[in-house]
Amino acid sequence: MMEGQVDLCPEVEKTFELIGKRWTGLIIYVLSSGPKRFSEINSLIPDLSKRVLTERMKELEEHGIVLRQVIPERPIRTVYLLTKKGSELGKILGPISQWASCWMKEK
Amino acid sequence: MMEGQVDLCPEVEKTFELIGKRWTGLIIYVLSSGPKRFSEINSLIPDLSKRVLTERMKELEEHGIVLRQVIPERPIRTVYLLTKKGSELGKILGPISQWASCWMKEK
Repeated sequence: MMEGQVDLCPEVEKTFELIGKRWTGLIIYVLSSGPKRFSEINSLIPDLSKRVLTERMKELEEHGIVLRQVIPERPIRTVYLLTKKGSELGKILGPISQWASCWMKEK
Repeated sequence: MMEGQVDLCPEVEKTFELIGKRWTGLIIYVLSSGPKRFSEINSLIPDLSKRVLTERMKELEEHGIVLRQVIPERPIRTVYLLTKKGSELGKILGPISQWASCWMKEK
């Protein structure tokens, strides 16, 4: 990005609105390590209620970021995975773990 | 990140809590193009009220992400810039513009 210049098109604003919704970024981050069941996501983010997680998963499905997949085995299982769109966003958010361990330790 | 595994330490959670606060990610993104006056940030993000922008800038200062600098020239000017910590986070968020123009056009 050029010094002083900023590219603030509506798409960029919409993206920050998306990841700037509580828990959304973290859910994408968690799913970028591979498909997960609802209960797995829930146990990885214990502070997030099931109600809000359900809401966020629906929003992420609507945005084409998450795909809900039913595995036709017995017992039938449902997993959530990132679409191509979602995994590209997950790749961007991935380096946040290094940043966090460098800069958020002290607080 | 290894498939299936996820590194969800408290620092990562705290970081997503930070950027998952409405407008915060966008403010960091805007400042990563260089120091800006309050009024410049405000005009770049017109949907964000002055009251909320003031609040977010204070939070970002407290987190050591933004520095408020008074330029001792006449007329005295105040600019906001990213600290080292903030600019490292800004670099991570930078590629969001490419992602957004690829994937958010249709909506």
